[in-house]
Amino acid sequence: MTDEKEKIKTDLFRQAMRRFAATVSIISTVSNDGTPHGMAATAVTSLSFDPLSLLVAVNKSASMFEPLKSSGFFCVNVLHSNQRNQCDIFSRKEIRDQRFKVGNWEKNENGIPYLTDAQASIFCEVDQNINAGSHSAFIGLVLNVITDELIDPLIYLDGGFLNNTEAKNTSQHILNKETKKYKSTTQNLEGIDWLW
Amino acid sequence: MTDEKEKIKTDLFRQAMRRFAATVSIISTVSNDGTPHGMAATAVTSLSFDPLSLLVAVNKSASMFEPLKSSGFFCVNVLHSNQRNQCDIFSRKEIRDQRFKVGNWEKNENGIPYLTDAQASIFCEVDQNINAGSHSAFIGLVLNVITDELIDPLIYLDGGFLNNTEAKNTSQHILNKETKKYKSTTQNLEGIDWLW
Repeated sequence: MTDEKEKIKTDLFRQAMRRFAATVSIISTVSNDGTPHGMAATAVTSLSFDPLSLLVAVNKSASMFEPLKSSGFFCVNVLHSNQRNQCDIFSRKEIRDQRFKVGNWEKNENGIPYLTDAQASIFCEVDQNINAGSHSAFIGLVLNVITDELIDPLIYLDGGFLNNTEAKNTSQHILNKETKKYKSTTQNLEGIDWLW
Repeated sequence: MTDEKEKIKTDLFRQAMRRFAATVSIISTVSNDGTPHGMAATAVTSLSFDPLSLLVAVNKSASMFEPLKSSGFFCVNVLHSNQRNQCDIFSRKEIRDQRFKVGNWEKNENGIPYLTDAQASIFCEVDQNINAGSHSAFIGLVLNVITDELIDPLIYLDGGFLNNTEAKNTSQHILNKETKKYKSTTQNLEGIDWLW
């Protein structure tokens, strides 16, 4: 396939993925020295119910990739619609010093950080790590689960957030404002994977 | 872990997954004799952008599992919010004779059926088939993509559909009405995987 055809296909795939509404989670883990790591992600899906498992796609260039591989444990913290700030903090490099400092973060018995006021926190042990090119798919066996009563996810669609006009506008403003800065240097934006 | 503890964990995982808003797609493929097969699914996620790939989780008991393994090709048809009927047709066994007969289904050059009025149709070739217990994760390399202009996905959340009160009520009515019939015989309901 020519470069031009490949470019068109990539653009069409991006457009197709922008049509998927998806829930935003923070995936968290810990490195061997006890440092917490995390990223915002929409590429999370339930996989199997025997055994209970889910799957997350992680960019190999993400700062949490190596810690996740090493520790073998992670937590999927499913955000509430009012937790846009967590999504920003775990997506934008320039405010990454706020990670795990803003919000009610605790640690479980394996030292994995989890957001106590998330909609749900799903603790997993890595069962398989599947190489898929730029990304790996991590299959996590579910160890335990905490849920909040309220069902009200932060939903990402078409480069903005659903059911929250103000957040959506803010997001688009941020994206527009920062396009020049980030477009050709996507490694600056950890959450680029879900920013279709 | 005791059966009771396992049951509690399963129930909590189910509750957590009900907190994920997700877009409904019809995954379609074809068996060697040319028969089309499909299922409604929310367990679809983008995976890698080099190479372009996505991932779908398929229950091994689903009627499309073997055809998908054999053909090695599939299409992800991303539904519009007004395509609840496709979701029903591809979830409920008692109306399965309507599959591929209702709606504008065409076939691509590999014989894979696709819904021409979906939000997007993403054609894939299976690259990896990962065993995960009750389900397999199929990684598909993206071959080509068709998109519609309108961005308006059919979104599933907490056993109903978002942004469409009538559809949501209908769905819940269906679920309630049919609970007795389906609850203990989940194999009757092909779409059970996303009916968290």
